[in-house]
Amino acid sequence: MTAVTASSHPFDRAVRLETVDAGTVRGATDPDWANMVGPFGGITAAALLRAVESHPDRIGDPLALTVNFAAPITDGEFDICLRAARTNRSNQHWVLELRQGDEVKTTATALFGLHRDTWADDESHPPSVPAPEEVEPGAFVDAIVWAKRYDMRFTDGPVPLRAVEPSESSTTTLWVRDAQGRALDFAALACLSDVFFPRVFLRRGRFLPAGTITLTTYFHVDQSEIDAAGSDYLLASAHANRFSRGYFDQSAHLWSRAGRLLASTHQLVYFKD
Amino acid sequence: MTAVTASSHPFDRAVRLETVDAGTVRGATDPDWANMVGPFGGITAAALLRAVESHPDRIGDPLALTVNFAAPITDGEFDICLRAARTNRSNQHWVLELRQGDEVKTTATALFGLHRDTWADDESHPPSVPAPEEVEPGAFVDAIVWAKRYDMRFTDGPVPLRAVEPSESSTTTLWVRDAQGRALDFAALACLSDVFFPRVFLRRGRFLPAGTITLTTYFHVDQSEIDAAGSDYLLASAHANRFSRGYFDQSAHLWSRAGRLLASTHQLVYFKD
Repeated sequence: MTAVTASSHPFDRAVRLETVDAGTVRGATDPDWANMVGPFGGITAAALLRAVESHPDRIGDPLALTVNFAAPITDGEFDICLRAARTNRSNQHWVLELRQGDEVKTTATALFGLHRDTWADDESHPPSVPAPEEVEPGAFVDAIVWAKRYDMRFTDGPVPLRAVEPSESSTTTLWVRDAQGRALDFAALACLSDVFFPRVFLRRGRFLPAGTITLTTYFHVDQSEIDAAGSDYLLASAHANRFSRGYFDQSAHLWSRAGRLLASTHQLVYFKD
Repeated sequence: MTAVTASSHPFDRAVRLETVDAGTVRGATDPDWANMVGPFGGITAAALLRAVESHPDRIGDPLALTVNFAAPITDGEFDICLRAARTNRSNQHWVLELRQGDEVKTTATALFGLHRDTWADDESHPPSVPAPEEVEPGAFVDAIVWAKRYDMRFTDGPVPLRAVEPSESSTTTLWVRDAQGRALDFAALACLSDVFFPRVFLRRGRFLPAGTITLTTYFHVDQSEIDAAGSDYLLASAHANRFSRGYFDQSAHLWSRAGRLLASTHQLVYFKD
C-alpha cells in the first residue's frame, strides 16, 4: 500500500488514504473529527473527494460532489471503492461507495473537469458583515469534537447553546477558517461545505435529533483561486427553504474574504420534532 | 417483460419502463421529448425516478435525486440498472446507471423515505407575479421539441429568442403546467426541475453552447400535496450564482399556485463563450 499524504495536521491525517487496488483505497476515522454519531459528514465528503483527486486516472479539478449518508460510519477503518463511470474530453464522472465490511455506509458521485477561459461573472451577494477580527470566536457544544478544528465567528444565527426563543429565520452566517492555519484545498472546501449545524435548531431554539442525509457541493474555483484563499477566513452562510414532515433542505454559500463565491452547497436533512 | 405504465400521454410514454430483471429496466427515448442533442435532461431524470418508484423493493416517497449527465443519450432503447445500496428503517439509498450497450450515459443516486408528522414551516418566498391567466403564453425556439409539452408563461427572464442586450440578472420566473393537463406526480416534478433554459443565455443575451452536467432535486412534498397540485400551474424560478471558467451553477424552486414549495433543485452547467 502507498501512503497518499503524510502530513500530521488533523485534516490531512483524517483524509489519508492507502491504495488497496486500482478501484479501492482505505482510510480510517479520526477521533479529532468525531460528531455526535460517527465522523463529521464534512470529513467523509473530504475523504471521498480526496480518493478521486489521488486516483491516477483522474483528470481536471473537482466540479461537483454528491454524498449520500446511508448509515453511520463506525470508528475504525473504511474502504472507498471508486471508478470513473465515464471519461470525456473535458470531464469525468466518478461513482464511489464507502464500505465497512459488507455494509455500504456512504454512496457518492463526483464530477471532475478541466477549466477553460470564458466570460465570467459572480452574481452572488455575500451578506454584509463585520470583519472577522471584529467578531468574537464562537463555539459549538463541547461534545462536537470536529468543531474544535475550526475558528468560527458567527455574525448571524449562532448555535443555540442553551434553549432560546425560536427564531423566525433559519439563517446562519459565520467567518470560518482552519484553527491551525492550514491552507485551503479542494478537500478542505468540501469539508467546510458541511460546517453548518442543522437549521431546525434555530427555528426551534434548541437541539433535537437531526442529520444530513445527502449533500451536494458545486466548486466554482480552480487551483489558483483555492491558493489565493490560503488560510484566511471564508464567509459561510446557510439557510433552509422548507421544513416538512421530517425533512428540510439547506442551501449555503462559501465566499473568500475578497467576496468571491468559492462553493455553493445544498443538503437534505432529516429531523424529529 | 412487464409494462409498468400504459397511458398514451407523451410523458407516460417517455417514462414507460419494462422489467428486464430484478436490477434492470428498459426504456426508450421518445421524439416528443427531444432536446438539441439527445433527450431533455428532465425526462431522463423522470425515467430514473420512475425506475425506483416502480421497483418492488422501494419504500417511501422520493426525497432527493441526483442525476449526472455523463454523455448524450442516443435515440433508441436504454437500460437503467438500479439497486438499493442501503435500506434503513425509514429511508433507502438507491444507485442507478443508465446505459446504452456498454456505455454509461447517466449516473444517478436517489433517496427515498417515509414521511412522518413533525413541526413544519415554509421559509421560502415565491416571487410576486401576476396570475398565469394574466400572462401571455411564451415559447422556446421551435427546435426544442420537449418545450412544446408545457404551457409556459414567463413573468421574468424569458428565452432570448433573438439576440438581445445582455441582462444583469440570470433570473427566470415562469408559470408552467403540462400542455395537455396531465396531473402532477413525483416523476413529472422531477422532469420540471430541469425546465429552465441555461442561465448564461440571459446574461449574454443570446444562445451559446451549454448543457447541464449534474442535477439535484429535493422533494418537499408527500403524495397528498402532489395530488393537491393536480394539473394546475406551478410557479418556477431559477437563478445562477457564479459563472466561472466554463461552468455555472443554477438554483431553482418550484411552488404550487397556493405558494407551497414543492421542490428545490440545483444544477451545474457547462458553457462555452
